[in-house]
Amino acid sequence: MKVGILGGGQLGRMLLQAAANYVVETYVLENDDQCPAAHLCHHFIKGDIRDFDTVYRFGKQVDALTIEIENVNVDALEKLEAEGVKIYPSPSAIRIIKNKILQKEFYKQHQIPTSPFCITENIDALYGQLHLLPAVHKIGEGGYDGKGVQIILSEQDIPKAFNAPSVLEKKVNIKKEIALIVAMNNTGETAIYPPAEMVFDPILNLLDYQLSPAILPEKILWKAEAIALTVVKKMQSPGLFAVEMFLDEQDEVLVNETAPRVHNSGHHTIEANYSSQYDMLWRVILNYPLGNTGAILPSAIVNLLGAENHSGKAVYEGLSEIMKMENAFVHLYGKEQTKPGRKMGHVTIMSKDYQDLKHKANKIKHTLKVVSA
Amino acid sequence: MKVGILGGGQLGRMLLQAAANYVVETYVLENDDQCPAAHLCHHFIKGDIRDFDTVYRFGKQVDALTIEIENVNVDALEKLEAEGVKIYPSPSAIRIIKNKILQKEFYKQHQIPTSPFCITENIDALYGQLHLLPAVHKIGEGGYDGKGVQIILSEQDIPKAFNAPSVLEKKVNIKKEIALIVAMNNTGETAIYPPAEMVFDPILNLLDYQLSPAILPEKILWKAEAIALTVVKKMQSPGLFAVEMFLDEQDEVLVNETAPRVHNSGHHTIEANYSSQYDMLWRVILNYPLGNTGAILPSAIVNLLGAENHSGKAVYEGLSEIMKMENAFVHLYGKEQTKPGRKMGHVTIMSKDYQDLKHKANKIKHTLKVVSA
Repeated sequence: MKVGILGGGQLGRMLLQAAANYVVETYVLENDDQCPAAHLCHHFIKGDIRDFDTVYRFGKQVDALTIEIENVNVDALEKLEAEGVKIYPSPSAIRIIKNKILQKEFYKQHQIPTSPFCITENIDALYGQLHLLPAVHKIGEGGYDGKGVQIILSEQDIPKAFNAPSVLEKKVNIKKEIALIVAMNNTGETAIYPPAEMVFDPILNLLDYQLSPAILPEKILWKAEAIALTVVKKMQSPGLFAVEMFLDEQDEVLVNETAPRVHNSGHHTIEANYSSQYDMLWRVILNYPLGNTGAILPSAIVNLLGAENHSGKAVYEGLSEIMKMENAFVHLYGKEQTKPGRKMGHVTIMSKDYQDLKHKANKIKHTLKVVSA
Repeated sequence: MKVGILGGGQLGRMLLQAAANYVVETYVLENDDQCPAAHLCHHFIKGDIRDFDTVYRFGKQVDALTIEIENVNVDALEKLEAEGVKIYPSPSAIRIIKNKILQKEFYKQHQIPTSPFCITENIDALYGQLHLLPAVHKIGEGGYDGKGVQIILSEQDIPKAFNAPSVLEKKVNIKKEIALIVAMNNTGETAIYPPAEMVFDPILNLLDYQLSPAILPEKILWKAEAIALTVVKKMQSPGLFAVEMFLDEQDEVLVNETAPRVHNSGHHTIEANYSSQYDMLWRVILNYPLGNTGAILPSAIVNLLGAENHSGKAVYEGLSEIMKMENAFVHLYGKEQTKPGRKMGHVTIMSKDYQDLKHKANKIKHTLKVVSA
């Protein structure tokens, strides 16, 4: 089978590592020919994943397509789908998810718990929705990687809001942030991974690391699983999805956002679960039975971001010290240039003991640095 | 770091899958540009790994070299080593191992237990060594993949022997065949994997599958580990080695042969051990700390060979049935053409119960077939 991937970043790289277990001819479309995935496919095509003609021409060469980022030309995918190319996820799911307004309305339409919200067409509209404050304002289209999100605590913050169609969501009193990965195959069978939980630094309010399986009371786990499965089933699309949820102070589970693809919150599944999220997506695309989502051991993911004040050729500090730790697995994405905050790699650490995991995640966080030469 | 691999078969393919966890620019030298590893490296160079000039030119581009087959030009590797290219394993180790006479003399020289033997220069010489019969005759140079080996049960078989410098080894009464994988880094630190045992069909005398960890009394395990470590330390070469041994009817452990590279007997380490043999070799080459060789669960490997009477474009029968089994991991090497006995892939199956493993290995053996279209 010939399968194309739109985007050639680290998610594409890890997808291609997993692809080599099977017989599949791989194609990657990406503007940067030095991208992390460029050398791991059979056919690399340099081009813009947002351009209709480029995506259409790319898709006409393959039997199936998948994405590693939502910011793709959905019109081209719809035309390709109509002409018989299998798309994972379906273009309709990408269309819903890539627009924050449509995504939020989708949850409402299907009675999927999510925080109260309204649609705002422009800044002025926010003044009529003060009852939702404090809130989060999310631009409908074009928000990626933390951009397109603005916290509106009170009326004074409204001038910082987006003057474009957006969603105003009531801020949730978050007890915990969790993510569940769900795969659905072409016949509607599903497989769900144990939830992951995000651990934030209580002082800096930055994502510090992620733990999996999340520590949750059984009833909340069941609720979260039921909600994640509902999201994916209602999307009516085969593929692999990461459903990000909040657990609030009242123990309600609310969907925050869904990603219709392999996801950062599932990196640990490479070592810490029997079948990784990457393997699982190939099983869906190649029409193989779904894999075992079970956890081998509890694990943590520490993301390796480019250090502040460092731009240039990447150098990794502390690597040997980290790799000395039992069951620390380093993944470097092979990006030649680092810049502050750039995702340069991640470390998965496994241990049967959660205290040990937390201790080691902190050690990794403070030892491993990406600086410039 | 720039690292070259001599050979582009399935071992190269799996090495390259593991390489993508790290920052390494990969080069592959291989005559067949449709080989399993060709599309997974940064630079594919078509050429003969047995040719001096080809290997030398290839090696001059990289910082380090490794092999996925012993049948390479060792003279070129020695020149490259003298000029500062790091070679894993060292050319001297390859030279010893690729010649069955030198290999056997190496064991003798270092008091490593191995079956009694003599060197025979020609067929006639065997008539003076009848006391060693029944024996196995192995040609010194050029024997690969089961070729270059002849069973000499009695004097009548001698005309079938090799009329070239060879080793005549007394046949061992084998109770069990085991293999141990050992890695040694540049500073002489070692890591040893749990042993694997080969399970043969009692009727057909064919290797049926492999189990790991091998079921061995503790004293025999210790003996086997001590012997495997001695082999690698005496080779005085960094790299990764598979030491194949016989356990005889008297519970003696005898070294049969050593492979100075990643090996078929270590395929299961991808899923069934924390750090795979492929990951481990990269840790050695990239000067990272050695990984955890521990087994996650007991496992079996079933090799997927091209079916008898089938030559042509490969088709895989029974794949879905196998992949439905919990913790069955299929690896297809992506070879377009199948022929009888060709290594087309393998399946690793994991289970905490050895009876269940054996049952599943048999099921895989009888369900999964590679035929021609």
